[in-house]
Amino acid sequence: MKGRVSLVGAGPGDPELLTVKALRLLQTADAVLYDELVSAEILKLILPTAQLHNVGKRCGKKKIQQEEINFLMIALADSGLDVVRLKSGDPMIFGRAGEEIEALRRANIDYEIVPGVTSALGAAASAQIPLTHRRESSAVVFLTAHQASDSEAADWSKLAGSGATLVIYMPGHNYADISAKLKAAGLASDTPCAIVSRATAADQHTFRTSVGKLQLSPTLPAPTLLVVGDVVRYAAADQSQPFSSGREISISAGLVSVFAAESIQEEPVA
Amino acid sequence: MKGRVSLVGAGPGDPELLTVKALRLLQTADAVLYDELVSAEILKLILPTAQLHNVGKRCGKKKIQQEEINFLMIALADSGLDVVRLKSGDPMIFGRAGEEIEALRRANIDYEIVPGVTSALGAAASAQIPLTHRRESSAVVFLTAHQASDSEAADWSKLAGSGATLVIYMPGHNYADISAKLKAAGLASDTPCAIVSRATAADQHTFRTSVGKLQLSPTLPAPTLLVVGDVVRYAAADQSQPFSSGREISISAGLVSVFAAESIQEEPVA
Repeated sequence: MKGRVSLVGAGPGDPELLTVKALRLLQTADAVLYDELVSAEILKLILPTAQLHNVGKRCGKKKIQQEEINFLMIALADSGLDVVRLKSGDPMIFGRAGEEIEALRRANIDYEIVPGVTSALGAAASAQIPLTHRRESSAVVFLTAHQASDSEAADWSKLAGSGATLVIYMPGHNYADISAKLKAAGLASDTPCAIVSRATAADQHTFRTSVGKLQLSPTLPAPTLLVVGDVVRYAAADQSQPFSSGREISISAGLVSVFAAESIQEEPVA
Repeated sequence: MKGRVSLVGAGPGDPELLTVKALRLLQTADAVLYDELVSAEILKLILPTAQLHNVGKRCGKKKIQQEEINFLMIALADSGLDVVRLKSGDPMIFGRAGEEIEALRRANIDYEIVPGVTSALGAAASAQIPLTHRRESSAVVFLTAHQASDSEAADWSKLAGSGATLVIYMPGHNYADISAKLKAAGLASDTPCAIVSRATAADQHTFRTSVGKLQLSPTLPAPTLLVVGDVVRYAAADQSQPFSSGREISISAGLVSVFAAESIQEEPVA
């Protein structure tokens, strides 16, 4: 009998931000293919008997091609295994799920998609930035910085000029370039920005700046997200999450028990 | 001693798409203030001893003002209760969390924000539409239809003309108006659209159409979301989720056990 594939969002980092369904699937998977950005705490939840495959396309070593991931995923399911394809955040946002779904359909493999908390929402919660606000912004845009070609620069101009909150995934470190594009799109130099580093992790950190000073930002630990727009004014002055995180998820015989650890995190805003 | 408030995302509907953290907080809350769109299955997870307050602003009866919600939330926490403010989807996307956070800060109440799976991601998973795609769309926009004023029409024009995938929350039933605005923004009449009804619920349903024919769409059960863009071409021809949903979460003495129910859903695409 053929196995099946679940394309699962792992959420922004904190294992407690897995969905209940993602946790159940991780606890029963025969094989898990995971991306580089999935945290070690989450990988610990997988059964010790499951096959684990790091298919992160950012591996320092040889780059794994999308076609190789598709091939492995299908071969494992074809051999009868229940496979979890685990992606950080949500699979349908910058996750190449579209290409994997096409491959699964062609191979006639049963699959399902399990949404997750995308990184922008983790960052918004960590930095306490409402991405929409009745008085400030009635739309939010998720985009990436790292593949901006000339044709996409046009889109940037429209998107950034729309008044919507922007959340830039994988902003990289070329903040001067991003700043220039945002200004070219008509954003004022004093438009507030926040770089959110390692959102929802114990060492999360937010750096607040403005479009005009973005290029002076420090290099913060990956993954980072850049939030641009007037809503950033609502970010917490003090970034400490008053009583969050530091939780551990323990597994026993199909039961999920959730209990509080002792640590309470305090993160100063830079 | 003062209580505290957790602003918690309930996800798109399926109780298994609660985060582990949201579930833990619901199981320990002294009081829960919830919106109209939070499903009955999720409300069943709350302790029978907890105070339950429906603060849905869509109640048929008298409208509850945002100020009244803020007042109740703060009064309950002030009296020493641990309060969960439960919002469908994610609290930072069209959830007025910004206003509630401001009120909590002014009242000096401890709070935290727990992100959730926003409805757009639930709809994308249900309809199998990748919201971004390497070949089709490098950005996605979340916006609403129901409060579009003249000034926002300008934004629509830029956002819809950017080439990004659009996800329109709360589209209402005036599809003729939305179609006109999308065409005015330069979208071709044959740009594919999908109306996703009750995403991730057992009776989820997707209706595929185009910008030019949008006004001919049927009225589907709320909540609905409208997805617009070339990525809609990737939606499943058959909307059945091969092995999903129909799960129940049972609670016993602080333990969460998750087991499969028998039903497998099959939803034809219209």
